[in-house]
Amino acid sequence: MNIPADATSPHTARTLADPDTPFAVVDVHKTQRNIERLAARADRLGVTLRPHVKTAKSLDVAALLHHGTPCPITVSTLAEAEAFADGGYTDITYAVGIDPHKLPRVLALLRRGVTLRVLLDSIEQASFVGEASRQAGLPVPTQIEIDCDGHRGGLKPDAPALPEIGRILHDAGCLDGVLTHAGESYFAYTAEEQRLAAKNERDSAVVAAERLRAAGLPVATVSVGSTPTAHAAEDLTGVTELRAGNYVFFDLVMAGIGVCDIADLALSVVVTVIGHRPEYGWILTDGGWMAMSRDRGTAVQAQDQGYGLVTDLDGTLIPGLVMTGASQEHGTLTARDGAGLPDLPLGMRLRILPNHACATAAQHQAYHAIDGSRTANTAPAIQALWKRVTGW
Amino acid sequence: MNIPADATSPHTARTLADPDTPFAVVDVHKTQRNIERLAARADRLGVTLRPHVKTAKSLDVAALLHHGTPCPITVSTLAEAEAFADGGYTDITYAVGIDPHKLPRVLALLRRGVTLRVLLDSIEQASFVGEASRQAGLPVPTQIEIDCDGHRGGLKPDAPALPEIGRILHDAGCLDGVLTHAGESYFAYTAEEQRLAAKNERDSAVVAAERLRAAGLPVATVSVGSTPTAHAAEDLTGVTELRAGNYVFFDLVMAGIGVCDIADLALSVVVTVIGHRPEYGWILTDGGWMAMSRDRGTAVQAQDQGYGLVTDLDGTLIPGLVMTGASQEHGTLTARDGAGLPDLPLGMRLRILPNHACATAAQHQAYHAIDGSRTANTAPAIQALWKRVTGW
Repeated sequence: MNIPADATSPHTARTLADPDTPFAVVDVHKTQRNIERLAARADRLGVTLRPHVKTAKSLDVAALLHHGTPCPITVSTLAEAEAFADGGYTDITYAVGIDPHKLPRVLALLRRGVTLRVLLDSIEQASFVGEASRQAGLPVPTQIEIDCDGHRGGLKPDAPALPEIGRILHDAGCLDGVLTHAGESYFAYTAEEQRLAAKNERDSAVVAAERLRAAGLPVATVSVGSTPTAHAAEDLTGVTELRAGNYVFFDLVMAGIGVCDIADLALSVVVTVIGHRPEYGWILTDGGWMAMSRDRGTAVQAQDQGYGLVTDLDGTLIPGLVMTGASQEHGTLTARDGAGLPDLPLGMRLRILPNHACATAAQHQAYHAIDGSRTANTAPAIQALWKRVTGW
Repeated sequence: MNIPADATSPHTARTLADPDTPFAVVDVHKTQRNIERLAARADRLGVTLRPHVKTAKSLDVAALLHHGTPCPITVSTLAEAEAFADGGYTDITYAVGIDPHKLPRVLALLRRGVTLRVLLDSIEQASFVGEASRQAGLPVPTQIEIDCDGHRGGLKPDAPALPEIGRILHDAGCLDGVLTHAGESYFAYTAEEQRLAAKNERDSAVVAAERLRAAGLPVATVSVGSTPTAHAAEDLTGVTELRAGNYVFFDLVMAGIGVCDIADLALSVVVTVIGHRPEYGWILTDGGWMAMSRDRGTAVQAQDQGYGLVTDLDGTLIPGLVMTGASQEHGTLTARDGAGLPDLPLGMRLRILPNHACATAAQHQAYHAIDGSRTANTAPAIQALWKRVTGW
């Protein structure tokens, strides 16, 4: 895993000043605050929260979602489903359109007693899921993907094929419900646009569910969600569950559309100053795109945050400093908005707040967990090293 | 590692049709052809080739570079240096400006008998490397980074500080030479621009070396290189070694500036068709940015290749089809240049040729090795599963 040996020893790696850079940090205090905020919303809205674990991909981070009894989760890969099943999670939705080749692993999880739901949006997929279920003597619980905003997959709520797909699944004992994801809400730049996206997401799922019910098909699950709409929804009547993933960490893209504040960002990457190019106005670090990812999600927002904003090691934002360039293992920091380039000496450690938490987290094998509520003016203590699930 | 168990068994995963998608593929035939091409150039130019292993990060791919006796290599992380030292490589240059905190691991490698060179560009770094060498009783071989084109770090060849840095290193027994990297050559769009970039890269390194020698300082190594300039250089008089990394795989960025042909691309990602949205002109796959990276390197080129071009499973390009969209685990393929959307059925496997091999390879834990010279009209046989080095 190439996790530095010293990082796992409380004697030799006690703070963020110790492990070699770059490395990923999770602020547990902020993560818990983000988790509680959405949990309270789901309670008020009267729906089950089914967090998407694709962002953190960590059993340790997921443990913060509940108090001992594994909660319902959403996953983006079967590797996640398998790892979380190993960790005791038994209620899992695999929210990527099912590929027939992957059904043996789905069935293996079902045989272990895991309720693993799959997703599809075509008659062809429904037919092979139904057939595989019959052959296995084990119905694969299946949701029909509804396209509420033209983001990627799914059937429009009024698609002619919807009842037929529902019928094929129902006849095989597989029909669980409908699922939609307002992916375009990431580009909803105002609170009002986000509320409208949430309403449309809810309406699309409910209309689809009602069409299936009108055809005599039972619909147990009506699942909606994205981080922006989950935080904007005002009425989820007819919806049974809410999904969101990014919200555990948040990021600059979410801050850029107002879903969170920059102070809520729970994931960062510790880097070290390795050079100065005053003639270009650059400070160079050892954190490049390998540590941050190539994600430039804020490039389309009103405020382009480059590859990320910069904080001190204790998490205090350094005003006007932005990571504007990235090679594989080099980051370039520059000043903007008339800010002068701060005097950051060689060897100084900084933290970079990412554009897109899912993408930045994916560049790392593990997180260094800290409690950011107790770290002013000091290098935060490392409480644990939390591994990520990798691969597919 | 989440490498599918079936992929390691020759009985159950014999071809690219077998492992669950997405997964990375290395065409060994093309890799060897790319390696031989640059090795022959280095021979003609009379310089040592020191490949940069940061692209493949694989001992198995690196084994293709030589015939049993580990060759000189360049690395981008100490994790690579340690993994390759474990694999018998003893002549390694760590080509990222040295952070003082990392010197203990550098010294540990030197004590193992590995000649590990570090890089720096400031008096402050030279002072602490010299001091650490004296304290350890073991000189750290050091190169001074020269900035030939304003890409990121280094001293301009005429920088006043150059002789002083050289003197500090020499007095500590650490001075090995100079190193430069024409990173801006990735944006040299014609063969003539690439030749000029190569000449400038060579001239910058040689001028810097001559300034040090004029100050009475011995310069053993004069190191230059980038994939574009390594393929364009016509005269490397005064240079001792040539570095390049991307060339083992090449990618669409390199094809876009004419350094290679698309037929030379040795890295690809196998994905599966999981949906169709004819109303939008989309084919959806299970390969998103997690499998391809967020790199959009061709976006600044004359021909934007989106997230990649699409081939059949045997490697035959599907004309006009481009991966234009990416979610975490979804890819969107669209037609361009007046091409119709091909009829690619659900469950069909495709290969995506990446913009940037270094970034796409980094999204994977391992490569599935094939011999692409024997695969027309059939699913290529998997010859081996090759692990990558991860982390820092």
